[in-house]
Amino acid sequence: MSFRHFLNFEGLSPQRIGSFFSKVDQLNFYENIKPNHHIVAHLFFEPSTRTQMSFTMATIRCGAQPLSFPFENSSLKKGETFLDTLLTVQAMGVSAMVVRHGYPESMKDILGVIQIPLINAGEGSSGHPTQALLDVYTILKERGRVEGETVLFVGDVSHSRVAWSNFGLLSLLGAKIGLCSPKEWLPQSKKYKFEYFDTLEDGVKWATVVMALRVQKERHSVIQNFDIKKYQVNGDILKKIKSDAIIMHPAPFNREVEITNDVLNDPRCVIWKQVANGVKVRTVLLKEILKLQ
Amino acid sequence: MSFRHFLNFEGLSPQRIGSFFSKVDQLNFYENIKPNHHIVAHLFFEPSTRTQMSFTMATIRCGAQPLSFPFENSSLKKGETFLDTLLTVQAMGVSAMVVRHGYPESMKDILGVIQIPLINAGEGSSGHPTQALLDVYTILKERGRVEGETVLFVGDVSHSRVAWSNFGLLSLLGAKIGLCSPKEWLPQSKKYKFEYFDTLEDGVKWATVVMALRVQKERHSVIQNFDIKKYQVNGDILKKIKSDAIIMHPAPFNREVEITNDVLNDPRCVIWKQVANGVKVRTVLLKEILKLQ
Amino acid sequence: MSFRHFLNFEGLSPQRIGSFFSKVDQLNFYENIKPNHHIVAHLFFEPSTRTQMSFTMATIRCGAQPLSFPFENSSLKKGETFLDTLLTVQAMGVSAMVVRHGYPESMKDILGVIQIPLINAGEGSSGHPTQALLDVYTILKERGRVEGETVLFVGDVSHSRVAWSNFGLLSLLGAKIGLCSPKEWLPQSKKYKFEYFDTLEDGVKWATVVMALRVQKERHSVIQNFDIKKYQVNGDILKKIKSDAIIMHPAPFNREVEITNDVLNDPRCVIWKQVANGVKVRTVLLKEILKLQ
Repeated sequence: MSFRHFLNFEGLSPQRIGSFFSKVDQLNFYENIKPNHHIVAHLFFEPSTRTQMSFTMATIRCGAQPLSFPFENSSLKKGETFLDTLLTVQAMGVSAMVVRHGYPESMKDILGVIQIPLINAGEGSSGHPTQALLDVYTILKERGRVEGETVLFVGDVSHSRVAWSNFGLLSLLGAKIGLCSPKEWLPQSKKYKFEYFDTLEDGVKWATVVMALRVQKERHSVIQNFDIKKYQVNGDILKKIKSDAIIMHPAPFNREVEITNDVLNDPRCVIWKQVANGVKVRTVLLKEILKLQ
Repeated sequence: MSFRHFLNFEGLSPQRIGSFFSKVDQLNFYENIKPNHHIVAHLFFEPSTRTQMSFTMATIRCGAQPLSFPFENSSLKKGETFLDTLLTVQAMGVSAMVVRHGYPESMKDILGVIQIPLINAGEGSSGHPTQALLDVYTILKERGRVEGETVLFVGDVSHSRVAWSNFGLLSLLGAKIGLCSPKEWLPQSKKYKFEYFDTLEDGVKWATVVMALRVQKERHSVIQNFDIKKYQVNGDILKKIKSDAIIMHPAPFNREVEITNDVLNDPRCVIWKQVANGVKVRTVLLKEILKLQ
Repeated sequence: MSFRHFLNFEGLSPQRIGSFFSKVDQLNFYENIKPNHHIVAHLFFEPSTRTQMSFTMATIRCGAQPLSFPFENSSLKKGETFLDTLLTVQAMGVSAMVVRHGYPESMKDILGVIQIPLINAGEGSSGHPTQALLDVYTILKERGRVEGETVLFVGDVSHSRVAWSNFGLLSLLGAKIGLCSPKEWLPQSKKYKFEYFDTLEDGVKWATVVMALRVQKERHSVIQNFDIKKYQVNGDILKKIKSDAIIMHPAPFNREVEITNDVLNDPRCVIWKQVANGVKVRTVLLKEILKLQ
């Protein structure tokens, strides 16, 4: 069964995810690209570098052509609504659209008007499911399993769409979720079960996967007494991290803020593998959506 | 006979347009794209979303590669003239160039310096001939004919390059042109024959095609007593539009300004078909220009 | 032997350059493009139109796909370092990267962190070696030789990365270098041997190649008594230029500032050939780097 849309992990089984990851294992990027007739629109209504470039790579790897939307220079400035822009691009005959938008319910609103496949490339602070796919695929490859893993999220968890999407997929696959965060940034949820850690040291002793999150500097002022050092994955913390654990970050990261250079250079740190896996999972996702396999 | 350039409708016969439209009918977008050696430059010296994306789609559909020009970030800022930029891009070895520029005689000036085929993608407020091609092709497909159709243009007609290009093509093919517009925005022309309507109701009773034009908000202040409602295609007007007429708009449109939601949802409204036809006519045009058929 | 990286002319022999130029002679741009599996990243951390478009054309001509980096809208704004951006793009699986950056030692710093082939597309004011390749190839084709040619650089020489890269390649191939420049803009170098000319007239009487450089208006104020006319290649100077000499400019140029219209229209002026040759030399360079021939 192929995906029709890819918006979140609702309705997916661990078996479905497992067969998806098997396809990722089988990708071969060294064959000449065979062009097909598909054009995939990339519509980012928020700034993005890495996710947009990653989807562009994935689109090319599929033999399809990317059609990007010049956000800065667009008809939105002429009074057109965001949904009318999507309807216009749909009418042009693209096969699918990859969309990022800043408000939480954007994908639901889009689904209400379009007929072609839609891929969620980031939605408010609520979800970024292809990031979770690449993160969890990385855990599987680097740790050999997902079920039973103990995954610690560090920092500004509640505003992180990466974290929220990871909660969904990790829970589905039977991993345990730990949180180490200032209380103002602790997520509220009845859906997921969390372990709470007051100190980062306690957290990393528990964790087989340490996921540092980007500190968004504009949010610092919200927390009066925010002590960046308390949630920094640094050389001292590195000594407490299990020898066979892995260290992840969704990037872009702030060196020497939430993560330090010695951690980034540690062999347990797999952030560049995350980036590489991102292109792979998005390629398989697009192939499924475009029914290319 | 192929087009060498495509700048306007001068010198074209109804037969020539008819054979062009026949080719549009025969397009098949579901075959794998076969790359050729052509690279087509897209040089938009004015902001554009839909026209530029439409030409990009058309270029890809031809098996050619688009080369876009980073207008915001260009050598124009280093003191280079617009014509020198075009000469540079020509020298790079592109097969054709698609150009939009803000002043009325821009295409004539460009033709004076370049040797490769040139496609007019919008020229001052004087012309936008590929938009007219897609509009008239849409009339043909939706109404079954162009000759004898009664096409009403509503709103800011005199500043609309879409309207001016439509006048040329519709006149050539024997359609009748009606206008309903504030007197400040009525076009002056000895070349075309117009029917004038004081009220939108009278106009739509006459029309088989109602073409609403975008209200450019920056022009409102020019007209002291401009009453937007008088030229708005809305629910009341909808009831007076012929049951077999079609409603068009070149887009982007301002919902609830020149056109209302109930009109956009009416089955007679064919704006998304216009967008789809835009990619088709531009694909055939590029194929002719590149001598691919 | 293929290039692994292309950063400057160190370690290259005249024979190596000669065999490279032979390949440029043999290019055929009229064959259908055959897609391979390569994706080449273009990362311009400074504004660029012509060089970026030229590399995009070259990438397409190779059968590879360009992946451009949205500089204005990038993760750099989220606090990511320039080198981390490059590491990210490398991790995505591109085959090579074409980079321009504003500071002089940027290529050395990049080489310290990446493993994939790197092409220097402009580095501070110190080097722009593909521009030198295209300039010297143009001299070879238009003058029939490089060794023994007398090449005069006019204007703001010391800040011109184009000039510095040309010095390297011209010296390697046995051409003589002349300078005509305000004393504030005279380059200091123990590496290269220069002939100095106090007047442009004396310079052009000596030269078989006259290379006018762009006047960067923002630098005028530095020189109190800068007399633009003294270094302007204009109609008066044109009469003194040898009848079989050629006139070059790396562009973009300021008409009627450093070079006048009558000079640009003179048959000895080969600036559009430089642009055309730019795509050619970059195509061969990428083919070598990607091991496509």
